[in-house]
Amino acid sequence: MKACKAKSKNTAKYVIGVDYGTDSCRALIVDTKDGREIAAAVSYYPRWKAGKYCDPKINQYRQHPLDYIESMENAVKGALKKAPKDVACNVVGLSFDTTGSTPALVDKNGTPLALLPEFAENPNAMFILWKDHTAIKEAGEINDLARQSKIDYTAYEGGIYSSEWAWSKVLHILRNDEKVRKATYSWMEHCDWMPALVTGQTKPEKVLRSRCAAGHKAMWNEAWGGLPPEEFLVKLDPLLKGMRDRLFTTTHTGDELAGYITPEWAKRLGLPEGVAVAVGIIDAHMGAVGSEIKPNVLTRIMGTSTCDIIVSSAETMGDKLVPGICGQVNGSVLPGYVGLEAGQSAFGDIYAWFKEVLAWPIRNILAKSKVLDKKTKEALIAETIDSIIPALTKEAQKVPVSESSIIAVDWMNGRRTPDANQLLKGTITGLTLGSSAPLIFRALVEATAFGSKAIVDRFIEQGVKIDSIIAIGGISQKSPFVMQTLSDVLNMPIKVIKSEQACALGAAMFAAVVGGVYENVEKAQDAMGAGFSKAYKPNAENHKQYLEIYKKYQALGKFTEEKIFNK
Amino acid sequence: MKACKAKSKNTAKYVIGVDYGTDSCRALIVDTKDGREIAAAVSYYPRWKAGKYCDPKINQYRQHPLDYIESMENAVKGALKKAPKDVACNVVGLSFDTTGSTPALVDKNGTPLALLPEFAENPNAMFILWKDHTAIKEAGEINDLARQSKIDYTAYEGGIYSSEWAWSKVLHILRNDEKVRKATYSWMEHCDWMPALVTGQTKPEKVLRSRCAAGHKAMWNEAWGGLPPEEFLVKLDPLLKGMRDRLFTTTHTGDELAGYITPEWAKRLGLPEGVAVAVGIIDAHMGAVGSEIKPNVLTRIMGTSTCDIIVSSAETMGDKLVPGICGQVNGSVLPGYVGLEAGQSAFGDIYAWFKEVLAWPIRNILAKSKVLDKKTKEALIAETIDSIIPALTKEAQKVPVSESSIIAVDWMNGRRTPDANQLLKGTITGLTLGSSAPLIFRALVEATAFGSKAIVDRFIEQGVKIDSIIAIGGISQKSPFVMQTLSDVLNMPIKVIKSEQACALGAAMFAAVVGGVYENVEKAQDAMGAGFSKAYKPNAENHKQYLEIYKKYQALGKFTEEKIFNK
Repeated sequence: MKACKAKSKNTAKYVIGVDYGTDSCRALIVDTKDGREIAAAVSYYPRWKAGKYCDPKINQYRQHPLDYIESMENAVKGALKKAPKDVACNVVGLSFDTTGSTPALVDKNGTPLALLPEFAENPNAMFILWKDHTAIKEAGEINDLARQSKIDYTAYEGGIYSSEWAWSKVLHILRNDEKVRKATYSWMEHCDWMPALVTGQTKPEKVLRSRCAAGHKAMWNEAWGGLPPEEFLVKLDPLLKGMRDRLFTTTHTGDELAGYITPEWAKRLGLPEGVAVAVGIIDAHMGAVGSEIKPNVLTRIMGTSTCDIIVSSAETMGDKLVPGICGQVNGSVLPGYVGLEAGQSAFGDIYAWFKEVLAWPIRNILAKSKVLDKKTKEALIAETIDSIIPALTKEAQKVPVSESSIIAVDWMNGRRTPDANQLLKGTITGLTLGSSAPLIFRALVEATAFGSKAIVDRFIEQGVKIDSIIAIGGISQKSPFVMQTLSDVLNMPIKVIKSEQACALGAAMFAAVVGGVYENVEKAQDAMGAGFSKAYKPNAENHKQYLEIYKKYQALGKFTEEKIFNK
Repeated sequence: MKACKAKSKNTAKYVIGVDYGTDSCRALIVDTKDGREIAAAVSYYPRWKAGKYCDPKINQYRQHPLDYIESMENAVKGALKKAPKDVACNVVGLSFDTTGSTPALVDKNGTPLALLPEFAENPNAMFILWKDHTAIKEAGEINDLARQSKIDYTAYEGGIYSSEWAWSKVLHILRNDEKVRKATYSWMEHCDWMPALVTGQTKPEKVLRSRCAAGHKAMWNEAWGGLPPEEFLVKLDPLLKGMRDRLFTTTHTGDELAGYITPEWAKRLGLPEGVAVAVGIIDAHMGAVGSEIKPNVLTRIMGTSTCDIIVSSAETMGDKLVPGICGQVNGSVLPGYVGLEAGQSAFGDIYAWFKEVLAWPIRNILAKSKVLDKKTKEALIAETIDSIIPALTKEAQKVPVSESSIIAVDWMNGRRTPDANQLLKGTITGLTLGSSAPLIFRALVEATAFGSKAIVDRFIEQGVKIDSIIAIGGISQKSPFVMQTLSDVLNMPIKVIKSEQACALGAAMFAAVVGGVYENVEKAQDAMGAGFSKAYKPNAENHKQYLEIYKKYQALGKFTEEKIFNK
């Protein structure tokens, strides 16, 4: 950038957090001094938006690497354009977070195969998005083999390997696409590839791999010297022979420097040369950092489902393995702490499901009525359905806990944690002829809070202290009723973060560390944290009553798990 | 009737069945030769219709004896008016069925107190309708005392005395209305009083009391020489001292002659003098007779709840007491057989409940929309809500049993039989984010069928044979889907009766017996039965699958009974 050669009066130091979500890339420019958000821009993935390379019928979701490249350029340049002119020259750090596990097969140069002309339109040569479920069979085989092995390589990933994770997906592609297999040298996570790309170091063996992705999604652990041994992988499938040596042994935390931006990328992004680039992290973990996660604080990303992140000091954890959670990895969130992940497989989705059940007569009967013209009908239907959850909430929150006699179990999408079991289903009991829709809704809200309590209790039983909750995500912003219920059920205060871009803000914090502004990310959090917009305090009387209902929730859940869904 | 003195060419013999329901009196004129329905008329109770003497908030439901008198006159005369002119003269018999237990306190002459000027407007002096629940406390005391007694006087009434039954209600009034108490000599059931009234013999000690009402609702049983002994009653409350002697020791079946119509009543009703009048019966039991009940056939009156009636020969029954049903009484249905009663406390009510849950957004959100004018909105709302159950049915019946993975327990209104327990509540399990309204509805229909199976199984376990089902009532006419599901779950054929006035037709059959046309009611049934409009046959494959689901229904129900609702 020529302009940077001229001296600017602005001595502030800025960083950019680049957050790759499921459908777009967001760039956030932040002042490292106080975390002030200078400018942000979002760019949607063009090919993804056009529905390309996906097949929802078989849960195939692929993303083209060009979508990532183009949207990054648009977002970063777009944000810089909105910022004052002298900001760009003072950017000192860049950090990425992405969805995960979202791996791609790469060649010797670390180039995702879809960037080669012969694979440009082959979905198997693209990034396999986190929610792609084409590798269910392979996940089953990994779990079977892990159960038979002396060492359970899934132990730090909650004991059950998912079809959403790297090894399942990589193996699935190798088995099903010979052309791609022959061109494959190694594989890379999306959060590994972005820093590698802009720092010009993409060779698979040399890329600094994300501890977060490797530890939570690829069975990497220091305990067994990195990835599972060659013997295990070859036993899983001889097609994996030699792959391990073309991957990595060590991994890196988000406060580590991946390198400096290349002149070419500096130019493409409109940044000065030599901007420091951090090792990448998966988005939920990054969101926890941006939400000022600290030891003993559970950070919950609350939307359709929840992702729950906690950090615990290595001393507290020792060799302890918390059973039945999604995973625990040293340094996967805050460097120097063990990052633990859990989550409810459905949260807001349960309310949305009930809304759809209630909307059935409107969508299926009223929509066919001949009383109205099409336009009026559509407006009426949209207006009514959109109001269902707010209207239910209004009525449900009037009901005292003592009169909340319906009990539900929140396993409508199986149970992720504690103790994953996809065979489980939801239950509602205590129904009478007087059970109204708001009363049932209230029970569903309580059930999702009870599901949260089961996770929190598991951590606490295992010696991981939790004092309070930080909440991010749609539900935390939209539903004070849900949040208050959760606070009452857990008997814990909850703070809702102010920033609506916690992931990008977290990335900015790491960028400030590698950019030399802060010694470590905790100091960056202290200075750059956006604070909280709302706080909930538990009602002790309600909590006491909920403890009694929770006992019944547990008993009912246990019964259905053992006797109804045990096929 | 003067006209009857002239000879008529018509030599047919007619009978009139008079059926008192909850809100109206129906008179049905039938040709005794073949049961052909000649004419019918319905008359609504005027005071009841005006909402008088009732207080739904405390479940107080009272009916004025004048409502019964006036509606009988209107209905009988109305039916005769519709019939050919020569019919009236050839009426040979009259029989009554009424709701029950619906008792009234009476004076020495057997006059319901509300017919005396000083009590004309006092609800406590009127008939206490079956669904009046003001005597819950008294029922509890009767049950407690029965448990402590050497002989359990509730044994033939399923072991639990109800607040809907005579002794609870009588005691409640005696305790709470001193004026009425002082004027009280005895009490009488509605089905006792009607024949007494028109035959001119109302003296409490002389009225031929209904075996059906006394046995099922007043703890009358031959085993202990009639009503519970004076000692028991006085221990219950000294206010009952002497009452037993002013009641009855023997009881009578519906084929017995109560007497002949008085000249005055013949004139008032437009009938010839000397028409034979039968002893009365409660409506559900009469409906079973009208539906051609036979041994080994379960007759079900299927509406908001079910009333299930079966008859079994005295030899089969011996001294056997079927536990957990509503009652068993010699001759309460067909003379010479033990009549057994059971029932589900909610059946169609469960579908109606679900409909109302689904209608919530329409009633509470759409109804407030400003998009439409009031009239259009009301039409649209009514049209949509009325279509909910038919539309759900249409979708639900497409689902094969194998895909019906939601399991419900039908205790939304507690459980009446087997083994009454009002603390129980309904449950729905197997819910996923894909569980649609029709799938839930299907599970509710299956649950009501499972509730039926629990009753049928109890009878069969206890040696009461059941081969097939006869169905009467709204659900049996309206929902082939429910009826087929029931047939599949029970693995039994079901016939739906053709007559829509089974109770009045049953009364006509008894009238034909006391009128001297048939030797007994079974012969009357053979000749006068209206036959069946529809038959359902079980699907063996579905039944096999339902047996597996039924096991889970039972386990789930048992668990909730023992662990969730056991306070």
